[in-house]
Amino acid sequence: MTVSTDRIDVVGIGNAMVDVLTHETEEFVAAQGLVKGSMTLIDADRATELYNQMGSAIEVSGGSAANTIAGVASLGGTGAYIGKVRNDQLGDIFAHDMRSIGVQYGVPRSTEGSPTGRCLILVTPDGERTLSTFLGASVGLTPDDIEGSLVRRARILYLEGYLWDPPAAKAAMRKAAEHAIADDQRVSLTLSDSFCVDRHRESFLDLIDSSVDVLFANEEEITSLLEVDSVEAAIAGIVGRTEICVITQGAAGASIVTADRVVQVPADAVDHVVDTTGAGDLYASGFLVGLAKGHDLEMCGRLGSIAAAEIISHIGPRPEVDLAELVASKLR
Amino acid sequence: MTVSTDRIDVVGIGNAMVDVLTHETEEFVAAQGLVKGSMTLIDADRATELYNQMGSAIEVSGGSAANTIAGVASLGGTGAYIGKVRNDQLGDIFAHDMRSIGVQYGVPRSTEGSPTGRCLILVTPDGERTLSTFLGASVGLTPDDIEGSLVRRARILYLEGYLWDPPAAKAAMRKAAEHAIADDQRVSLTLSDSFCVDRHRESFLDLIDSSVDVLFANEEEITSLLEVDSVEAAIAGIVGRTEICVITQGAAGASIVTADRVVQVPADAVDHVVDTTGAGDLYASGFLVGLAKGHDLEMCGRLGSIAAAEIISHIGPRPEVDLAELVASKLR
Repeated sequence: MTVSTDRIDVVGIGNAMVDVLTHETEEFVAAQGLVKGSMTLIDADRATELYNQMGSAIEVSGGSAANTIAGVASLGGTGAYIGKVRNDQLGDIFAHDMRSIGVQYGVPRSTEGSPTGRCLILVTPDGERTLSTFLGASVGLTPDDIEGSLVRRARILYLEGYLWDPPAAKAAMRKAAEHAIADDQRVSLTLSDSFCVDRHRESFLDLIDSSVDVLFANEEEITSLLEVDSVEAAIAGIVGRTEICVITQGAAGASIVTADRVVQVPADAVDHVVDTTGAGDLYASGFLVGLAKGHDLEMCGRLGSIAAAEIISHIGPRPEVDLAELVASKLR
Repeated sequence: MTVSTDRIDVVGIGNAMVDVLTHETEEFVAAQGLVKGSMTLIDADRATELYNQMGSAIEVSGGSAANTIAGVASLGGTGAYIGKVRNDQLGDIFAHDMRSIGVQYGVPRSTEGSPTGRCLILVTPDGERTLSTFLGASVGLTPDDIEGSLVRRARILYLEGYLWDPPAAKAAMRKAAEHAIADDQRVSLTLSDSFCVDRHRESFLDLIDSSVDVLFANEEEITSLLEVDSVEAAIAGIVGRTEICVITQGAAGASIVTADRVVQVPADAVDHVVDTTGAGDLYASGFLVGLAKGHDLEMCGRLGSIAAAEIISHIGPRPEVDLAELVASKLR
């Protein structure tokens, strides 16, 4: 076996998922006992029950970090992904969609146990999405799936907060972070969801203080993490705990917080928001590619805004156009 | 078991498929040896090879007659569908998407043999689609799957030309047509594709002359069927061979040909054609619902135009909105 020694811009680790998207009303979301805009973990039985009540859906590869790495590849960066699917049809779809966009993805599939994970997504008329996740095979990710040689080739290691839920996957993330720290790379974390932050606040803070160089969060997540009431208080609280903290604020753009300054980057204009699924994931794609390529923070934020704007203008969390071409046309 | 005796507006029979859609260039289509806009039958090996070369895709339930019946249900009509999938994940998706939109669908799934059929669809920048179909489990449809009692409850039996390819399915369609004729219902056929017409010209003409009351075709299909050079010649040739012949002509609308007149119905305006997959299928939905409800030909054509315009304004061949509400708003 030939081991490549080429550098990789970003290696991402996350729960590998196929998204199942449908349009539903706010009343339907409420009747299902779901909180609009949040992510709820569900078991196989509840997944079947909810699916049976949902309308016609489309299936598209998802998974938060997987979306980010797909975006990295579409932006012309090199990306690799670590996450677990089963040897079933949804697993085929997930693997195809990663490789076809140019992502290095070679994690062995499980051959028994739960089927490939899926995320049932209800898109309401305002473009907001409510997620119910059946983790399925993704919980089978273990430290054995982390190839140290792959992680050490990466300029940036990107970790998904959602992966903090399955215990073995959490251990896998810690192992990857140790490899990255040993090799003096940047370690990046996305908080994923405010309920996820609630479940894991202390261990997230430990990880941030010990290992994280670049933290991604939206307003709800960062204020939940630090248990404060405002973004201003969160900014004051996070300074010094991580090299860079990117706080995404939807249509208001993003605040990029470092030890000595806060950079405000506006959002890219979008005519009609169709589906916000993947907005944060793709913001991270742009920002991380910029960072890996050595751009300044303003340009990193601009790349994030362009990628996020493309994703929310259509259904599904993966780019429909070549993002490198889109960026070239926007920056011309 | 309780057997319902309620009337059904339309019972459709076709190849049950999940569509796998991706955006590709015209160069890619040509390099794959495909003819843009056509449907090619492919085997399992070729399906794997083409899929491996295709970009990231989305999966959405398809199948020509299945799309039509889904449209019938969305328009507020009652629809039932007969087509075969396997007991696999794509089969689950297909069955869910039919039932969730309100279609009666109870054909037993195959438990061995080929997986659920899929149609690999390359959407070019002009919105045109090129289909490569792996029939898979759908070829397992046999006359045993035709419930005479179900067919006899339908006002209209709708047959998909594509189903003429697998021999047992062809026998199933003939059995269904006999039930419908015996019960004095209308039998409707779509020619599906000009290459399909080429493969089965004589037996299509036999079926039309003996059994078909309502024939759907686009310009290429009807001119191929009758081996003539123009739509005018096709109109002259088809008069008297079937009660109604609907010739869809894309942006030019449709010509509805009967023994004593030709009704021209304009197309509904579409701002931006995204994906023409399902345009003909949904035109048939509208027309057939109109016919089942006793509307005149002008209104039948108008309903077809509204349903087709909705489908081509987004990716995928199933409606994204409640078509009954859309029709109500358009006809207000």
